[in-house]
Amino acid sequence: MTLARQIVLAARPEAAPGPEHFRLEQRDLPPLGDGQMRVRLVWMSLDPYMRGRMSAAKSYAAPIEVGAPMQAGAVAEVMESRHPGFAPGDVVLGYFPWSDMAVSDGAGVMKLDQGVAPLSAWLGVLGMPGFTGWVGLNRIAEGKAGETIVVSAATGAVGSLVCQLARARDMRVIGVAGGAAKCARAVADYGADVCLDHRAAPDARTLSRQIAEAAPAGVDVYFENVGGKTLEAVLPRMNDHGRIAVCGMIAWYSGAEAPPPLPPAWQLILTRRLRVQGFIVTDHQAQYGAFLAELAPLVGAGAIRWQETVAEGLEAAPAAFLSLLAGGNDGKQLVRIGADPVGV
Amino acid sequence: MTLARQIVLAARPEAAPGPEHFRLEQRDLPPLGDGQMRVRLVWMSLDPYMRGRMSAAKSYAAPIEVGAPMQAGAVAEVMESRHPGFAPGDVVLGYFPWSDMAVSDGAGVMKLDQGVAPLSAWLGVLGMPGFTGWVGLNRIAEGKAGETIVVSAATGAVGSLVCQLARARDMRVIGVAGGAAKCARAVADYGADVCLDHRAAPDARTLSRQIAEAAPAGVDVYFENVGGKTLEAVLPRMNDHGRIAVCGMIAWYSGAEAPPPLPPAWQLILTRRLRVQGFIVTDHQAQYGAFLAELAPLVGAGAIRWQETVAEGLEAAPAAFLSLLAGGNDGKQLVRIGADPVGV
Repeated sequence: MTLARQIVLAARPEAAPGPEHFRLEQRDLPPLGDGQMRVRLVWMSLDPYMRGRMSAAKSYAAPIEVGAPMQAGAVAEVMESRHPGFAPGDVVLGYFPWSDMAVSDGAGVMKLDQGVAPLSAWLGVLGMPGFTGWVGLNRIAEGKAGETIVVSAATGAVGSLVCQLARARDMRVIGVAGGAAKCARAVADYGADVCLDHRAAPDARTLSRQIAEAAPAGVDVYFENVGGKTLEAVLPRMNDHGRIAVCGMIAWYSGAEAPPPLPPAWQLILTRRLRVQGFIVTDHQAQYGAFLAELAPLVGAGAIRWQETVAEGLEAAPAAFLSLLAGGNDGKQLVRIGADPVGV
Repeated sequence: MTLARQIVLAARPEAAPGPEHFRLEQRDLPPLGDGQMRVRLVWMSLDPYMRGRMSAAKSYAAPIEVGAPMQAGAVAEVMESRHPGFAPGDVVLGYFPWSDMAVSDGAGVMKLDQGVAPLSAWLGVLGMPGFTGWVGLNRIAEGKAGETIVVSAATGAVGSLVCQLARARDMRVIGVAGGAAKCARAVADYGADVCLDHRAAPDARTLSRQIAEAAPAGVDVYFENVGGKTLEAVLPRMNDHGRIAVCGMIAWYSGAEAPPPLPPAWQLILTRRLRVQGFIVTDHQAQYGAFLAELAPLVGAGAIRWQETVAEGLEAAPAAFLSLLAGGNDGKQLVRIGADPVGV
């Protein structure tokens, strides 16, 4: 038997989650059956959508049962295998429990080409967040050269790639981020023409005025990662036929912020002929190859930049997740569960 | 000189408009210049969008100046012409003042084929309202066979055609209308499978439950004509990848109804990957020929039904417009300004 440590959902949060909603447990992994493999987690991803899975309400991802382990995208090393497609030493990408060891039947698990980029990049710019940004910009918002885009959470794992892809196609890029340091990086590293600090703006009206100054020709595309004050501030700046790619609503995940009033939003949708479209990256999985074909060479050539915030060890995952929900991360939030495999 | 009577905007309404916001005036029409013609209005259209033009706020149609005549789509007879394209006796469709006589330079004026349908149909099923329904269903919502559509204002000039077009392509059609008589007609005349009376539902929650019963497979398309309680009731019933064609918001045009809370709407847009798209029919003018090619034969063959509410005489226009805003009309609201031309 192999002893695994894992973090389970201890209770459902009513509003903002805290440490009391997580619990570290140990359990024996059963011996492998045919078609199974045992993996050692190396890098684990923390992402805002996990907040939704802590609640019982129906969302696009099924709720985690109370007492069951939290789940995450992770890079792992195969330690033992009775699966014909995987051998010990393989490095893989998949969804696993928040744990140091896991048993998998290979469903949704992909072998990684270790030469392309640091392994952690497969959880960021080459993984779900990067793919999300690419789908949202290309397939949902259809951003075009010469247009102006506002990107919220502009230094986040999704937003930072959206800024770079938009800049590369000659869009005017206005980032919105929390704090002066993030704003400076959005401009210096991710190609934003301007980045506005939503924490320094006392209210949505002020932020909206700043957006108007930064976007003299109005806003054609809003890449929506956050909801709340930023959405309220951007809406009145949308041009006719603008598009809003609704990717995330982190400000509202825990009901923390008062909602803006509805009719102005709906009336703007009508009078300005906006297209507001929600999307979930997993619906677009068939495009992942096209995304990788475009991004992997850019990443290999050093043409794409990103930032990581790394928490050390499985035990650090809950605090890191709570920090992520509060915007305490800088770029992609990762947990280092174990050492990189030898030879990587 | 020719004396014309016209109705001008007497004052801007703060909330719901009343008779005090309109004034009947007489004025002398100037002699015709080169390229001008004088027309006699026969049928005048009243439409909800006119409420927006009474306000100073920027919308898709420019505000009417206080003291200037209200404007309307109308069918008119050419009485005198110094325009090379039009001759006395021609029957035309165009935008004119709310008046019995008008001078026009021919811009946006189209000669009508009088044989296709009763002249008033050019303001309804073959005109702007019909074209709006066709664009919204086909180009915006992309309704497909087997899907379920909810149509608000289902017996209105737009909604009644949407119901019939949706039914013809084997969609399940759920109408929403105000009152038992309208609901009965939506089913009997316009092909709705079910029609729900929003006046009989005490609140949005009740209406939402009724929609759930009428749409056991959920709602794929919502043709939004009204906003308010109906929008609030439909939103939770939207299926993943549903589409909302935002055509009108009459419940909110005068700020009369309290708004539903915003975050649930935005969160549904995200989690259900909805596409919410505002549209204004004038953006799609290039498709009007395709629309007519499809609809005119159907109308000629008696395959399309519609209802008209006719107010008699120019003086009756303000009261008829106020009634329209309150849902007092049944189908297309018209004003008969003068007798049909001889021979029609």
